[in-house]
Amino acid sequence: MTEFELGSRSNSGYSAWRLITEELRGEIAENRLRAGDHLPTENMLAERYSVNRHTARQAIAALVEDGLVESQRGSGTFVTSEPARLHQIGLRTRLTRSLGDDGSASASSRVLSSTIEEAPEDIARRLGLPHRKAIRVETTRSTGGLHIAVGTHWFDVERLPDIATALRRTGSVTAALRACGIEDYVRTSTVVGARHATASEAELLSLRPGAIVLVTEALDGLPDGTPLQHLVTRFAAQHVRLDIEHPSAD
Amino acid sequence: MTEFELGSRSNSGYSAWRLITEELRGEIAENRLRAGDHLPTENMLAERYSVNRHTARQAIAALVEDGLVESQRGSGTFVTSEPARLHQIGLRTRLTRSLGDDGSASASSRVLSSTIEEAPEDIARRLGLPHRKAIRVETTRSTGGLHIAVGTHWFDVERLPDIATALRRTGSVTAALRACGIEDYVRTSTVVGARHATASEAELLSLRPGAIVLVTEALDGLPDGTPLQHLVTRFAAQHVRLDIEHPSAD
Repeated sequence: MTEFELGSRSNSGYSAWRLITEELRGEIAENRLRAGDHLPTENMLAERYSVNRHTARQAIAALVEDGLVESQRGSGTFVTSEPARLHQIGLRTRLTRSLGDDGSASASSRVLSSTIEEAPEDIARRLGLPHRKAIRVETTRSTGGLHIAVGTHWFDVERLPDIATALRRTGSVTAALRACGIEDYVRTSTVVGARHATASEAELLSLRPGAIVLVTEALDGLPDGTPLQHLVTRFAAQHVRLDIEHPSAD
Repeated sequence: MTEFELGSRSNSGYSAWRLITEELRGEIAENRLRAGDHLPTENMLAERYSVNRHTARQAIAALVEDGLVESQRGSGTFVTSEPARLHQIGLRTRLTRSLGDDGSASASSRVLSSTIEEAPEDIARRLGLPHRKAIRVETTRSTGGLHIAVGTHWFDVERLPDIATALRRTGSVTAALRACGIEDYVRTSTVVGARHATASEAELLSLRPGAIVLVTEALDGLPDGTPLQHLVTRFAAQHVRLDIEHPSAD
């Protein structure tokens, strides 16, 4: 069992119980603790990490709050099985479709705001906008009542002047593009990173401070390569994993 | 400018300066603060977040330590430009190749340990092992002197009895498989998630507690689909982004 130096916590900005919570979260993520397994007791944790029982209790309480473990009176605390939602990333990436595949209601996008503004230089270049004038749409996406992602979409205002209205009405980028006369589009580029959620992201996704977002930066285009949408999506990492589509080897 | 509720910090397990650090990190990650931009001064941060200057100073010091910003005497603190290393994920995923593309020395793997053990049920199933006996190899991977990932590799012990020795000698999975008679292999499945680093990962990757790892769970196989390697890689999110290869639309 790996130990860590709680003595360094004053330098890290994390309290002792938070470090223990993250350590246990890692063990669950790595399947060293599996669904149905007993979590170590307060006493065991207090001894393992040389902390008092109150600190150990706080660490467990944070896992309970996140739904990773469940306390059952008389029989201890167990790891629950919360299946992560898989979001597929591939040639024809359709968020509304892939996140609906888990049997829950389909994912839908809600438009928070749309503005016409000058796109940052790198985005204008990727979208091939000589004039730099773009429509920026901020969205949240939910599935099964759970907010799972926030998105920032950029479109060419001259090519797609009505995209924000269509997105508001349909709740789906695919449907909105179709309403604008675009029957098919493909994903041409996706880069994935991860970082801590900002305060506004945490609020929109109901995450605690310090929670993690998976960030995808993507470009969608017509099958002939003409760029259509630059999209930055922040997924709540505690709810979503990304399933990468690989072309077949033949 | 987004504000957040520092009053809730006693419930979050994060100190006020850590929350401010992560907020600024998010602004840099989102390009709201760009390379060369001035970071807000201690006084501005103290006022914006209603904290004292000491707290604001700690928040900035953590960003300096991570190399995200640089202080220059007399002219303030600037956002530095640390290009993230791009790791390509595609049909023929070769870590040693893709992480060497940034001009630095090529990535190489170092074997920390190798054991023959019973694979967990899900891994045995994915590798198609009726006997469940597998070789497990733990590695770290570095590029340009920087540890950027730790990996846990599983191989069929009957198919590849000498893989650990070959990996130790060559420092590359591709070269080790070739030494075992496998000329070509392809990526058949990749799932990407993110979580906080465990204590052992943080130590191997020289990360602070609370730092984030991008986790890929992947299956490599022969072009005919025969599974070869189950691989779980944890990349230091502050150094690496994953570049997804999309097949062309034709």
